[in-house]
Amino acid sequence: MSGSKFESLEKSLENHLPEDELVEVKRILFGNSTKKLVLPECAVSGAYDRDFELQGHVFQCGSEQLRAPRRIRVGLVQNHTVMPTDAPVLDQIAAIHNRIAEIVEVAAMCDVNIVCFQETWTMPFAFCTREKEPWGQFAESLAKKYNMVIVSPILERDGLHDTLEGIGQEPEEPHPRVGDFNESTYYMEGNTGHKVFQTQFGKIAVNICFGRHHPLNWFMYSMNGAEIIFNPSATIGELSEPMWSVEARNAAIANHCYTCAINRVGTEHFKNEFTSGDGKKAHHDLGYFYGSSYVAAPDGSRSPGLSRTRDGLLVVELDLNLNRQISDKWGFKMTGRYAEYAEEMSKVVREDFLPNIVKE
Amino acid sequence: MSGSKFESLEKSLENHLPEDELVEVKRILFGNSTKKLVLPECAVSGAYDRDFELQGHVFQCGSEQLRAPRRIRVGLVQNHTVMPTDAPVLDQIAAIHNRIAEIVEVAAMCDVNIVCFQETWTMPFAFCTREKEPWGQFAESLAKKYNMVIVSPILERDGLHDTLEGIGQEPEEPHPRVGDFNESTYYMEGNTGHKVFQTQFGKIAVNICFGRHHPLNWFMYSMNGAEIIFNPSATIGELSEPMWSVEARNAAIANHCYTCAINRVGTEHFKNEFTSGDGKKAHHDLGYFYGSSYVAAPDGSRSPGLSRTRDGLLVVELDLNLNRQISDKWGFKMTGRYAEYAEEMSKVVREDFLPNIVKE
Repeated sequence: MSGSKFESLEKSLENHLPEDELVEVKRILFGNSTKKLVLPECAVSGAYDRDFELQGHVFQCGSEQLRAPRRIRVGLVQNHTVMPTDAPVLDQIAAIHNRIAEIVEVAAMCDVNIVCFQETWTMPFAFCTREKEPWGQFAESLAKKYNMVIVSPILERDGLHDTLEGIGQEPEEPHPRVGDFNESTYYMEGNTGHKVFQTQFGKIAVNICFGRHHPLNWFMYSMNGAEIIFNPSATIGELSEPMWSVEARNAAIANHCYTCAINRVGTEHFKNEFTSGDGKKAHHDLGYFYGSSYVAAPDGSRSPGLSRTRDGLLVVELDLNLNRQISDKWGFKMTGRYAEYAEEMSKVVREDFLPNIVKE
Repeated sequence: MSGSKFESLEKSLENHLPEDELVEVKRILFGNSTKKLVLPECAVSGAYDRDFELQGHVFQCGSEQLRAPRRIRVGLVQNHTVMPTDAPVLDQIAAIHNRIAEIVEVAAMCDVNIVCFQETWTMPFAFCTREKEPWGQFAESLAKKYNMVIVSPILERDGLHDTLEGIGQEPEEPHPRVGDFNESTYYMEGNTGHKVFQTQFGKIAVNICFGRHHPLNWFMYSMNGAEIIFNPSATIGELSEPMWSVEARNAAIANHCYTCAINRVGTEHFKNEFTSGDGKKAHHDLGYFYGSSYVAAPDGSRSPGLSRTRDGLLVVELDLNLNRQISDKWGFKMTGRYAEYAEEMSKVVREDFLPNIVKE
């Protein structure tokens, strides 16, 4: 259950459903079908040799008379940590850097413009231990080599925020207080608002991990102009898997933008046992990280996910023009009653707020 | 495609997946499994005789030491219209009343406490025609017979709001301007805020149809204390089906409450042809209403849906205590940075708002 035995929903459907029903099931579950993106042979063999999954998909988008297409490629990287968690810190960092470098190399072959790694990708997800050492020692920077925007969510030394090294800003995210996700033991919420980054490949934002549960967080990035919102995450099957396909996708639909949900893979074992506040015995791992990284589009469609079990690179070609096309079609931003919401919200947060309840 | 040939996603999975994979697929798609609710034999045979689908499910919920369970049953009704749309208005109304009465009778046998009908259930969904006559003549009230709260979304004569007769309030919903959903030709947005109704079976709210695309709308009902939010809808496969399973469910997760999504079934034909602003030839129907009504719980789980093809009554037993249990577990309301959002929103709606964009 919620472990590594099941490869993926997509594979199971493809293996067992008759073709005509598969078409309907995919339409209902995934929306407008994505097309296969043909990737160069060197990338395919590179991924094979380096033992990671490589998928390529293209979202549909109409052409316009007055705007050229704004086609870009995003790359989502999901991976296991490489070394045991009690190996020397520098060895762990070096090993994960090597692993990511060989995946990014393939991303470059695939002409990826923006790549996003999983949350705190340079380290095991050690917040479950509540130990400050040696985890506080994981902090560094990434060399610039390709003409690629890199969203690189790492633990930042200065002030201990969960931050974005490639972009250099800690975001204003809510942090979890659930299960073994003890991030609040390590860093504080940011206070820089919902910044959006204008890159050469479009306006992007990063809604880190737990922020995906908060529709208002996605919304604020969208209001600030985000065309793609990345959600680098670390989350386990037992806790969140049935929500995974819902939340980032709902955000893409509601906000007329693309969203990219990235999760790590595997089980990470820690030397010192810890308890989880659930009455169960002390144990050595947080649970199974189920991968399943995917991209959602504003038209309600989504890409297939990477597997639940393997390292992977998901390359998705998308046209940023789709955002406005869907906004013009559905008009959520036109019809949203934002002035009313703003007024109601300002009342909600006041101490003397009285809920609007009608009694029988 | 998106029509009546495909019964349901759930049936397709059950018919074709091997048992062990079905368990995993259902866990990923639907979360914590619901249990079958055993319904009285008279209800089962009543539904069979009257030719509608009857399903019963129970959501899981833990017991507490200081609060008794707050178990109630909701009933979701989805149905075709009964008479041709050019039959005399009174005949159409009488026929649909008879049909609903025989479904509600079965709901009463099932001890349903709160029943919700589809949007503007007393009439065909005629807003696609943009004709004012005879559709403006559909307006009436429902007799009180059972000790049941009835959420009865009808077209209200006074002021032409899309309103809630059982509860007597028009809600503050955004209205669509998409495809043939020309509601804005018929009625204006409400101005009564996001009212929640305290009933003997819990605090309920109604987020009508298009309001489900707006996360802030669900959020405001939740902030006002809603424990169950109903979403009576009328929506077609071509337009919204891939979003259907995402939006109400995301709202249940994000707001620690139950949500109920109800859609009508079938294709309604109109005598006068109309165009749809999509360059296609004039035609006589809006499209296929795909049913698929379901209930979502705050823990990320959901009930199976009713079929895409038949009239149906979905009876779901749920414990309102689950809302607080999940709020205590996940803490979205504790961690939500509402004061910051309120401040940002008040800036967003100002004319001089400058998006928070960082340039390279």
